[in-house]
Amino acid sequence: MTLVTPSATSALPFKVADLSLAEAGRHQLRLAENEMPGLMALRAEYGASKPLSGARIAGSLHMTVQTAVLIETLVTLGAQVRWASCNIFSTQDEAAAAVVVGPEGTVDEPSGVPVFAWKGETLEEYWWCTDRIFDWSAEAEAAGADWIGPNMILDDGGDATLLVHRGREFEAAGSVPAATDDASAEYRVVLDTLRRSLEGSPDRWTRIADGLQGVTEETTTGVHRLYELHAEGELRFPAINVNDSVTKSKFDNKYGIRHSLPDGLNRATDVLIGGKVAFVAGYGDVGKGAAEALRGQGARVIVSEIDPINALQAAMDGYQVARLESVIDQVDLLVTGTGNKDVVRLEHLLGLKHLAIVANVGHFDNEIDMAALESLEGAERVEIKPQVHEWRLPNGRSILVLSEGRLMNLGNATGHPSFVMSNSFTNQVLAQIELWTRPEAYPVGVYVLPKHLDEKVARLHLDALGVELTVLTPEQAAYLGVPVDGPYKVDHYRY
Amino acid sequence: MTLVTPSATSALPFKVADLSLAEAGRHQLRLAENEMPGLMALRAEYGASKPLSGARIAGSLHMTVQTAVLIETLVTLGAQVRWASCNIFSTQDEAAAAVVVGPEGTVDEPSGVPVFAWKGETLEEYWWCTDRIFDWSAEAEAAGADWIGPNMILDDGGDATLLVHRGREFEAAGSVPAATDDASAEYRVVLDTLRRSLEGSPDRWTRIADGLQGVTEETTTGVHRLYELHAEGELRFPAINVNDSVTKSKFDNKYGIRHSLPDGLNRATDVLIGGKVAFVAGYGDVGKGAAEALRGQGARVIVSEIDPINALQAAMDGYQVARLESVIDQVDLLVTGTGNKDVVRLEHLLGLKHLAIVANVGHFDNEIDMAALESLEGAERVEIKPQVHEWRLPNGRSILVLSEGRLMNLGNATGHPSFVMSNSFTNQVLAQIELWTRPEAYPVGVYVLPKHLDEKVARLHLDALGVELTVLTPEQAAYLGVPVDGPYKVDHYRY
Amino acid sequence: MTLVTPSATSALPFKVADLSLAEAGRHQLRLAENEMPGLMALRAEYGASKPLSGARIAGSLHMTVQTAVLIETLVTLGAQVRWASCNIFSTQDEAAAAVVVGPEGTVDEPSGVPVFAWKGETLEEYWWCTDRIFDWSAEAEAAGADWIGPNMILDDGGDATLLVHRGREFEAAGSVPAATDDASAEYRVVLDTLRRSLEGSPDRWTRIADGLQGVTEETTTGVHRLYELHAEGELRFPAINVNDSVTKSKFDNKYGIRHSLPDGLNRATDVLIGGKVAFVAGYGDVGKGAAEALRGQGARVIVSEIDPINALQAAMDGYQVARLESVIDQVDLLVTGTGNKDVVRLEHLLGLKHLAIVANVGHFDNEIDMAALESLEGAERVEIKPQVHEWRLPNGRSILVLSEGRLMNLGNATGHPSFVMSNSFTNQVLAQIELWTRPEAYPVGVYVLPKHLDEKVARLHLDALGVELTVLTPEQAAYLGVPVDGPYKVDHYRY
Amino acid sequence: MTLVTPSATSALPFKVADLSLAEAGRHQLRLAENEMPGLMALRAEYGASKPLSGARIAGSLHMTVQTAVLIETLVTLGAQVRWASCNIFSTQDEAAAAVVVGPEGTVDEPSGVPVFAWKGETLEEYWWCTDRIFDWSAEAEAAGADWIGPNMILDDGGDATLLVHRGREFEAAGSVPAATDDASAEYRVVLDTLRRSLEGSPDRWTRIADGLQGVTEETTTGVHRLYELHAEGELRFPAINVNDSVTKSKFDNKYGIRHSLPDGLNRATDVLIGGKVAFVAGYGDVGKGAAEALRGQGARVIVSEIDPINALQAAMDGYQVARLESVIDQVDLLVTGTGNKDVVRLEHLLGLKHLAIVANVGHFDNEIDMAALESLEGAERVEIKPQVHEWRLPNGRSILVLSEGRLMNLGNATGHPSFVMSNSFTNQVLAQIELWTRPEAYPVGVYVLPKHLDEKVARLHLDALGVELTVLTPEQAAYLGVPVDGPYKVDHYRY
Repeated sequence: MTLVTPSATSALPFKVADLSLAEAGRHQLRLAENEMPGLMALRAEYGASKPLSGARIAGSLHMTVQTAVLIETLVTLGAQVRWASCNIFSTQDEAAAAVVVGPEGTVDEPSGVPVFAWKGETLEEYWWCTDRIFDWSAEAEAAGADWIGPNMILDDGGDATLLVHRGREFEAAGSVPAATDDASAEYRVVLDTLRRSLEGSPDRWTRIADGLQGVTEETTTGVHRLYELHAEGELRFPAINVNDSVTKSKFDNKYGIRHSLPDGLNRATDVLIGGKVAFVAGYGDVGKGAAEALRGQGARVIVSEIDPINALQAAMDGYQVARLESVIDQVDLLVTGTGNKDVVRLEHLLGLKHLAIVANVGHFDNEIDMAALESLEGAERVEIKPQVHEWRLPNGRSILVLSEGRLMNLGNATGHPSFVMSNSFTNQVLAQIELWTRPEAYPVGVYVLPKHLDEKVARLHLDALGVELTVLTPEQAAYLGVPVDGPYKVDHYRY
Repeated sequence: MTLVTPSATSALPFKVADLSLAEAGRHQLRLAENEMPGLMALRAEYGASKPLSGARIAGSLHMTVQTAVLIETLVTLGAQVRWASCNIFSTQDEAAAAVVVGPEGTVDEPSGVPVFAWKGETLEEYWWCTDRIFDWSAEAEAAGADWIGPNMILDDGGDATLLVHRGREFEAAGSVPAATDDASAEYRVVLDTLRRSLEGSPDRWTRIADGLQGVTEETTTGVHRLYELHAEGELRFPAINVNDSVTKSKFDNKYGIRHSLPDGLNRATDVLIGGKVAFVAGYGDVGKGAAEALRGQGARVIVSEIDPINALQAAMDGYQVARLESVIDQVDLLVTGTGNKDVVRLEHLLGLKHLAIVANVGHFDNEIDMAALESLEGAERVEIKPQVHEWRLPNGRSILVLSEGRLMNLGNATGHPSFVMSNSFTNQVLAQIELWTRPEAYPVGVYVLPKHLDEKVARLHLDALGVELTVLTPEQAAYLGVPVDGPYKVDHYRY
Repeated sequence: MTLVTPSATSALPFKVADLSLAEAGRHQLRLAENEMPGLMALRAEYGASKPLSGARIAGSLHMTVQTAVLIETLVTLGAQVRWASCNIFSTQDEAAAAVVVGPEGTVDEPSGVPVFAWKGETLEEYWWCTDRIFDWSAEAEAAGADWIGPNMILDDGGDATLLVHRGREFEAAGSVPAATDDASAEYRVVLDTLRRSLEGSPDRWTRIADGLQGVTEETTTGVHRLYELHAEGELRFPAINVNDSVTKSKFDNKYGIRHSLPDGLNRATDVLIGGKVAFVAGYGDVGKGAAEALRGQGARVIVSEIDPINALQAAMDGYQVARLESVIDQVDLLVTGTGNKDVVRLEHLLGLKHLAIVANVGHFDNEIDMAALESLEGAERVEIKPQVHEWRLPNGRSILVLSEGRLMNLGNATGHPSFVMSNSFTNQVLAQIELWTRPEAYPVGVYVLPKHLDEKVARLHLDALGVELTVLTPEQAAYLGVPVDGPYKVDHYRY
Repeated sequence: MTLVTPSATSALPFKVADLSLAEAGRHQLRLAENEMPGLMALRAEYGASKPLSGARIAGSLHMTVQTAVLIETLVTLGAQVRWASCNIFSTQDEAAAAVVVGPEGTVDEPSGVPVFAWKGETLEEYWWCTDRIFDWSAEAEAAGADWIGPNMILDDGGDATLLVHRGREFEAAGSVPAATDDASAEYRVVLDTLRRSLEGSPDRWTRIADGLQGVTEETTTGVHRLYELHAEGELRFPAINVNDSVTKSKFDNKYGIRHSLPDGLNRATDVLIGGKVAFVAGYGDVGKGAAEALRGQGARVIVSEIDPINALQAAMDGYQVARLESVIDQVDLLVTGTGNKDVVRLEHLLGLKHLAIVANVGHFDNEIDMAALESLEGAERVEIKPQVHEWRLPNGRSILVLSEGRLMNLGNATGHPSFVMSNSFTNQVLAQIELWTRPEAYPVGVYVLPKHLDEKVARLHLDALGVELTVLTPEQAAYLGVPVDGPYKVDHYRY
């Protein structure tokens, strides 16, 4: 692939697939803005006061059309921004192009935001892009400063945060360790990336870490890493867990997957979902959305769970709850949404019906033991189209694996739709504002957004749906013991 | 109504409607036991070790068939028990009779548990019954003791807990205050009840309060009172909030109402739900269950909410969200499940269609402004059958009010079904065991059950539903950072 | 049971359970009228012109509150009516009482319609009651006539029609044949009934048959008998098949069962439907309604079918389709709605889980092989309450059989709700008007109602549900090739 | 667009977009075959006996992957085939290429079936392609014959049948009439096409019409034309109405639209369906499928109907039923599935919310008054991407029109999925066999397939879904009065 980088005369650093896609991308941004009422309301509320003035945000999050609206909202609120994607397949090249060109730039004179992302990066390219969002030398040069680093991270999955922490750790140690034998291919690339950095500078990551005022993190996995880091006393700056806002977790996971799972299945395979037997591993929010979508299309859904409470919920919602191995020979659509590893193992893949579809909407590609499949003697991989592979198995049957076992809602579709992302990203922006403007309120640690901000996110999305909210009378509010304007619920309320 | 009290020769104190109903009640208990696998599993697990030996439990909870299985489980685990209902209409007389007679007694020689409850108590009778569960003189006499009080409360709505706290407070003050002008009719009865007690003993409630080791509370309302009491520093003994166990709140509220709302509507009115316009005030767990049930029967459901998050959830579930006054003239079934007061006001009642049905599944009867209806000039009340009243309004239309505005799932049906209550009551029993056997772990305060016990409740209900639980491998558990046997979720997980 | 018959001074013949229930019945009729907009619209449209003047209708149809509204509609339209129930358990005694007393009569001076029906008839009583609706001697006496017979039948299941045809046949033969060895108990009673008639009169049924202008038949079974009779050349008078009007079959079967199946289950057992495994035999309209209702309550539904088209429909609606014997050991609720015999056989009953519930919403009690159960050695029947029996099986398990294997929506609940019956009964009344006023259009044969009348039935029910119908422009109607006011569909359209 | 036509050396006539897409198309065919068990079963059953030997089929039906499997099934059964698409946008170019190349041909030496179809034909090109399927000169040349015509038509929408009938009519008249002033643009092209034909030959269409043994027609519209033609005495050959097989109408319309409506919406717009207000015009099978799909994704669905029976069905399924103009200002997604014209008029389009989406899944583009929109002063059309246009309205709002108002499930997605089409096309093949092999059974007229063949289609699709069919015992079959192997239902049964 020929990638586009700035011409000699352009001040704007970037690396994307094709700037000529910018116009198409801009059309989509304009439509997406109509579906992202939360972000647009924030632009209206804060566009003049610019609470993010001075913030330099290193963003690592799927470079989609919706993220483009987020990026431009951050800019409208006063921030400087650099961006990479957090997944090698998830970039929408027209969105990346539109962001680089910017609302007022042209393909020849882009005046937007530096983006380093394209669909189909290699692992090496991926980590190079992630490294780039920490390189603010162009900005330093423009400002006549020796060095400038970012002071905020907006993260999804924690890769940007990981790079800073590992970089600083190895700088303190003076060297990057050799990869252990069991290190993943990806971790080896991380080590190589940091090794190159250390060759160039002994304290680059240390300076970056010291300059960071905080990170806002999008996902379960990233949040989990943050809590672990904090528990180990290693966390270097405060973090807001955006993932656990109700308006993020329920909406992004449940409603987002409800939408994008069938969308991805359809675009990948055009297989009729109705009448099929679908197996959904995991009945958390992701699994709940997946099961509802599949049932809504007329599939018979079987669910698996490790948690007896969620298992009981699935049963009470009318789903069969079974172990995968008990029903594997009936399964037409195998969907995994657990966040765990090795949920679908080789014996499962070998037990599936001919041309059964395997789709991951959980998190990492290790939910499905792709490694075992790839090293299975006699198995053959045929590309039907990009992100859709037929694996011919030694047992004479084939299976269809979507997005190489990675997130198929990103790889085979276009990710969550704008309205869902408007909920998530309105949380992100409010979290960035909190950390940037009220640092005193957030010592190093991991926080969820206060409930009144979570409710605010919801409130900003009601008009677009024609929802009439009922307003408490002062007497009713007093009776309930809550303020008329909220927050309305105790922290442990489960919605 | 002629009520039954012990004959002169019987040692067992009680007051119920008709002991001859005991056999019918026993049949129902036997069937209910099959639907309460959690309680039966506790009998199997703890029947021999009897962890509740020594516990003297004053129970105030709807005296239904399911509660009968709870009571006999407590007895099997070693407790002594006395019981009153917590609602004037909710007693199932055959269940009360069966509990009094006991599994091995006869109508002539009852050998079960002292119960003071019948369907259709007056307010005076209700508070007399509640008072009775604190009178353990028969047990004292049998034990040859001067005085014995209860040492545990199992409460639903907090009336038993209220009586103890107010009684002790007035004893400390030396007198029961006169009712203020705005006191409710019911609170006047409470004051009268305590006034009579104070006439008989200056320190009865103080002794009772001092002897109590804890209370386990079933409902939102009761829990809310406990948190307030504790916040004011007035709480006299530790409390476990059973209401907020997932296996209680989600199951009891959502799945219970899903079942019992249409059941109560059907028994009360036989009106086809399909095709009707139903309005559900409140989209918490109760409202979610109500809306799902009505949609499942083919109604068009409109929801109202004060909380923007819940409102957004309702919209995402496909419901119209509107203020009651905006759609009142379309409503055939008006259901309220908020826990708030004055949700349905006189102007709403006057705006309804002819013979629209008004049903409360929230909590108190003040969700609907029954007082305003009762004092409305020109309104006439016609009893169609018990708990079903046609109110002929001055506007020429009628409405049907169920259970006089109180909980219709109790008044018009038989309350939550056994399986739901098995979840709630298994929590209750585990909470009683916690407080009774581990007092050191619970200083005065309000607690939720630890998550591993919540998961245990779920686990005990899976086999009965044919659910196969998936078991983590040690590697997977390590990957997730949870024990193989749970607990699996962080405390703020929302299910 | 003490039944009530007229006092010596009353001119009105009848036999019901208790006339003092009339007031309660009248309240229910009044409420039901609000739910039967089709019948009330017919009263408004035809109350003055009285198209049924001169019609003497012998009615055999479940004597419920809804049927009471039908009866009084027929009277308002000018007919004379006599009534029996068509099921030994289905009479609502308060409805029967209200109809006998009449809207303007009193318990002491009933002035309504002669009804012969009570809940819990024996087979002998049942056929005696059916015989009574053909005895119009009181009317003859009042009219000073030697003899008067009915001239119309309104039938449900065809028992009234059967009695006339068999009676006439045996009169022609000169005697009633002895029962063959394999004759059912019920058929023996029919023969006895006719034998007694023949003893009293050699030509009573012949005269009745000759005087009949037609029959309108409500059910699949009855219609099937009519088509057979006509195919054999034995049908004596024209018949309108009301059962196959869309507004009858889809509404009565699908929507009626959706409502009354869970209602009956709840009243009979109070068992939580959510989370249970329900098996529905048959996926015709009855099965579709049953499956939807059970899923709507959170059950997991498995369906069986003999017809590949319906089986495919069930699969496309997301249900598992399996033979009963393949899944019998998972089933908690076994529902049969096929119209076939021996659908649930002894081996199935013996394979069920402990306390599984067996419910018939199909037609006859032979859907379940009750005879085999009743003659099973070692099986014991325990009455839990009327219409709910625990059968203790020799395998140590019990099952709960509802309504003794007969229609549980009638036996355990109150039948279809008023709105559903308003659809069915508006068809019945329109069919009676057709046959009575346009005999020339209906030579002996079996007919369905013309589509414009089917659409009229629907039209009369829309306002009550707030439905806005879209009206074709003349240009659109011409484009479609249909009249602006309908009928809109070809006869084979399937809805 | 550069289209591909045969090289000078190739014997195979065709015109498609790009033969190099054949390999990709072949992959998709192979996957589709797994989803078309009905067609594959016919290949297995009839591949040796070749009942279609001698049949020369002129096919006019969307040239998709699924149609490719149909075409190759017809060939396997012995037929010669030529194909055109029946919609200017619906061709999948890779499928067309694969069919031309054939399973054993190559891009350089195609050996498949002559196809004349590509995505994005002009009206002139479209009718040229339709004309081509009647030109069997290459086959004549190969056979050394003067002239050969087709002897069967397989039609979708009736365009091929129309061309033959109009061509023959004008040949009889000796000239093609001038277009009347109100003739549509498309009809003018038809006239031009026939005018050119008449210039070349005075009796070409007459010979073709005489040689045709029958037509099998796929759609409502085409069937409607056939019935009209037959009523007018103009039909020239027998026709089988495949559209009204249950396994076609219910499956194709209801389940197909349930799948492809959300698929098309997603591919076109990526807008979250959940929470939106969707309006579905028409509640026939198409509307039922559309409403179910949208509700299954969490939309609030409002339905309109002209037929009171369907309107009542919609209400009983829990949908609001309203006229479009009553709710237009709430609508986010406007879906039309009526088969009527002018359902969405200019006043509706002007009343919609900003960026509301307009989608037609009915039939012709005149369901939406596109002509009025196109001639609206001040309206501007912006192409967002192919088949997705933003119309900027003079009122300052925009709307998104999909597929230019034509069928968006074809234009924005890939049409019905394979499994649905397997049902439809198995009916088509059985109908072709009926007409070809049993001409004596089908005098000129319009027929539906006999029910046993309809049931056969269903039966051939059960195994793939894991459906276990229950088998009648001879006793049960006798009881029901049906053969053990079916057919099971009376003709007017509605499923």
